[in-house]
Amino acid sequence: MGKNLTKRSEDYSKWYNELVVKADLAENSAVRGCMVIKPYGFAIWEKMQAELDKKFKETGHENAYFPLFVPKSLFEAEEKNAEGFAKECAVVTHYRLKTDPDNEGKLIVDPEAKLQEELVVRPTSEAIIWNTYKGWIQSYRDLPLLINQWANVVRWEMRTRLFLRTAEFLWQEGHTAHATKEEAIAEADLINNLYATFVENFLAVPVIKGLKTESERFAGADETFCIEALMQDGKALQAGTSHFLGQNFAKAFDVKFATKEGKQEYVWATSWGVSTRLMGALIMTHSDDQGLVLPPNLAPYQVVIVPIYRNQEQLDAISQVANEIVNDLRLHNVSVKFDNRDTHKPGWKFNEYELKGVPLRIGIGPKDLEKRTVELARRDTLTKEFVPKEDVVKTVVQLLKEIQDNLYNKAKDYRDSHITAVQNFDEFKEVLETKGGFISAHWDGTNETENKIKELTKATIRCIPLDNPKEDGICVYSGAQSTQRVLFAKAY
Amino acid sequence: MGKNLTKRSEDYSKWYNELVVKADLAENSAVRGCMVIKPYGFAIWEKMQAELDKKFKETGHENAYFPLFVPKSLFEAEEKNAEGFAKECAVVTHYRLKTDPDNEGKLIVDPEAKLQEELVVRPTSEAIIWNTYKGWIQSYRDLPLLINQWANVVRWEMRTRLFLRTAEFLWQEGHTAHATKEEAIAEADLINNLYATFVENFLAVPVIKGLKTESERFAGADETFCIEALMQDGKALQAGTSHFLGQNFAKAFDVKFATKEGKQEYVWATSWGVSTRLMGALIMTHSDDQGLVLPPNLAPYQVVIVPIYRNQEQLDAISQVANEIVNDLRLHNVSVKFDNRDTHKPGWKFNEYELKGVPLRIGIGPKDLEKRTVELARRDTLTKEFVPKEDVVKTVVQLLKEIQDNLYNKAKDYRDSHITAVQNFDEFKEVLETKGGFISAHWDGTNETENKIKELTKATIRCIPLDNPKEDGICVYSGAQSTQRVLFAKAY
Ligand SMILES: [Zn+2]
Ligand SMILES: [Zn+2]
Repeated sequence: MGKNLTKRSEDYSKWYNELVVKADLAENSAVRGCMVIKPYGFAIWEKMQAELDKKFKETGHENAYFPLFVPKSLFEAEEKNAEGFAKECAVVTHYRLKTDPDNEGKLIVDPEAKLQEELVVRPTSEAIIWNTYKGWIQSYRDLPLLINQWANVVRWEMRTRLFLRTAEFLWQEGHTAHATKEEAIAEADLINNLYATFVENFLAVPVIKGLKTESERFAGADETFCIEALMQDGKALQAGTSHFLGQNFAKAFDVKFATKEGKQEYVWATSWGVSTRLMGALIMTHSDDQGLVLPPNLAPYQVVIVPIYRNQEQLDAISQVANEIVNDLRLHNVSVKFDNRDTHKPGWKFNEYELKGVPLRIGIGPKDLEKRTVELARRDTLTKEFVPKEDVVKTVVQLLKEIQDNLYNKAKDYRDSHITAVQNFDEFKEVLETKGGFISAHWDGTNETENKIKELTKATIRCIPLDNPKEDGICVYSGAQSTQRVLFAKAY
Repeated sequence: MGKNLTKRSEDYSKWYNELVVKADLAENSAVRGCMVIKPYGFAIWEKMQAELDKKFKETGHENAYFPLFVPKSLFEAEEKNAEGFAKECAVVTHYRLKTDPDNEGKLIVDPEAKLQEELVVRPTSEAIIWNTYKGWIQSYRDLPLLINQWANVVRWEMRTRLFLRTAEFLWQEGHTAHATKEEAIAEADLINNLYATFVENFLAVPVIKGLKTESERFAGADETFCIEALMQDGKALQAGTSHFLGQNFAKAFDVKFATKEGKQEYVWATSWGVSTRLMGALIMTHSDDQGLVLPPNLAPYQVVIVPIYRNQEQLDAISQVANEIVNDLRLHNVSVKFDNRDTHKPGWKFNEYELKGVPLRIGIGPKDLEKRTVELARRDTLTKEFVPKEDVVKTVVQLLKEIQDNLYNKAKDYRDSHITAVQNFDEFKEVLETKGGFISAHWDGTNETENKIKELTKATIRCIPLDNPKEDGICVYSGAQSTQRVLFAKAY
């Protein structure tokens, strides 16, 4: 009956891998680095998609779809972007297989079906999209162009981990075009805020909004906004990014527009995305040694009802009560599953739903029928209480809200207590090794120092927080003058 | 102000291509055979997706996601399936680009990054999914397994057309596993019915449900259910297919389950899909020489309001009325757009929304304000009427229903009058060349005859209708005995 889950304190990384598989979220596939997202995991991702999609549309964005493949000549047009992704590209070189003359029933790549120009499987779609925008944008009347797509992308990573870093992943990528620099920056900032609000309110994961340093920016961006979260093991995770692309892609693809005054100008761009990586952030922030812990706002079902019975007569009586509760909960927009399968015992089910992180479990047995109560168990606190039947719905609705808040507050307390200001490099290293989390330190603003610190400690600058107070100080590494602290951490 | 759209009677195929582009549905991309689905076209596809997804879930299916790539060794495991798709496979052979030493700023495929085993970009996912199911199915308790995925697939077609036949397309593919043959057949039939109901009620396209002949079956299927529609040019279009796969994939991937009695048996399978091809069926069934005609159930906005004004004062007064109507329509779940842009003239807008197939257009000018009326124009009949302002909502709600029905009935009348029973091959050829449509003819049941007819006339057997009456006769081509008529047509 145990879950045989490695404890977080023993091996956090192993705990994560086991949890993802055992909670039926995802598993590795036969394709190196590519995952299968299982129905339970996909149902959570669908809830994320639905909410984000709604928010994108409310802010004036429309969905579209662009090709999976990028011809090599387009891919290389924006040089920095191409350079940044070239090493991770899956490349289609042929368009046909044929039967192997030497090996019956086997297929080989048909050497006669070689493509004249190789096709890159999109690692990101700026190139193909800006090549398309060239045909869509002529005048200021065509701007702003606010488009998003939900798609799969491929980046050939050498070391992969379910959800966190996979060769293929699912994401949304927004690509917008604007008449002015100010508008484009405002859009990148708007979306970064939209991401932050979504991640905090739905994933219950607190984030820090900031800017990336030059060396951590998206390849081809002039500025990258980001949201950074902190996992339970003290490592940071970049949960979303929103890029101000300047006129880099407009210049690479020659996209100009006629202004009201009739001048020809290059268009300003943004792009932004969140991916199935958010699943990793969700899992690692809240889950415990018993398994997954889901915030009610993203749980495929918020409540599960498990009947405890010895015979059919008992099950019938319990089912009557359970079905009343199910109907009443649904009327109150609570998603609920009544698990009346006779192929599994109650103990097995309790265990299963704990592992799967269902926020509330209702147990109903013969004694409950007598006393007109049910047993209500919270996944987040693992506490139980008996509730009179007539109070169930009211209590559930209230608890779901409480659990959502509790998960956020708990994560925020942990995060806040793991932002440590340090004054010198010895302190920096000590905090990094013993406590982990974000380290707030003065930095002299040079790539050189940033790289050196990374080399020595594996910590990177996660972001320059947007709400950073100005503060004179000296760089934690070089001793040079600095005007503000930035956040360092080891990261996923 | 004209739409410069080729007339259907002049060149149906040209009319279609122009319409798709001019109505902002899709366009060709820089990648051979791959399309860009533009926001307006994608909004229609999203409505299709939402309704289908709801129906899949209501019938117990769950969504999941499987890898884009299929290792060649898995791809070739089910021989018929592999054979059927081998000639259309895009193949990934390398996982890295590098800078071209001979050509600054250019990239080449890195010959050192050759994959040990080539990866096929999925043309369909049976292979990768059944290889996964092997790990998911042990016992009868794991069955049925009812899974769907929304995905992109690639089939390297030589001649492509927007929506109808593209190298990459979007679709859903269901893949189910069952304990018995009967259950699997019932599932394939259930889904074929679900497709038929959806296409008739939402696309307003009447379909004939049938079975494919052996030579037209999905590669790897024991039986293929299909729904067949008829386009305005008399050619048939296969709108969806649902396959009973027997135990073919279970055997190829060794997927067995323990029965209740403890025996090991191979699992029974189905797969089924509809794709962005449905967009082609939608467009070709209803549209006219003025442009797209959309059934209200799939229109991104069902009503557009265009103000007709000379000055700001008039616009203000009209806007007040328009906004009242907008709010009231939304309360009645009617989607409506008030186009108050001052960058375009009313005539331009009338033209634009006609081209885009918006079911109802409301025009409001100064005279309407005086008379407290609006002008209501139907896209399907191109008729107009003046309606008292207080009757607008009631009239719109009623007309939307009427338009949906009218489109279906019109298409059904056309379809029904283009099913022609013939007695001999001369008649067959004459009807095919002069009238087109479905030809109902006796067939001797052999591949040989089917192929010969195809060779001579380009007509194929679209299906053996499920509700076919048994009827003795002689084959239209061979003169051999036959027990039923089947439907022939030229097809997309
Ligand atoms: Zn700590
Ligand atoms: Zn006709």
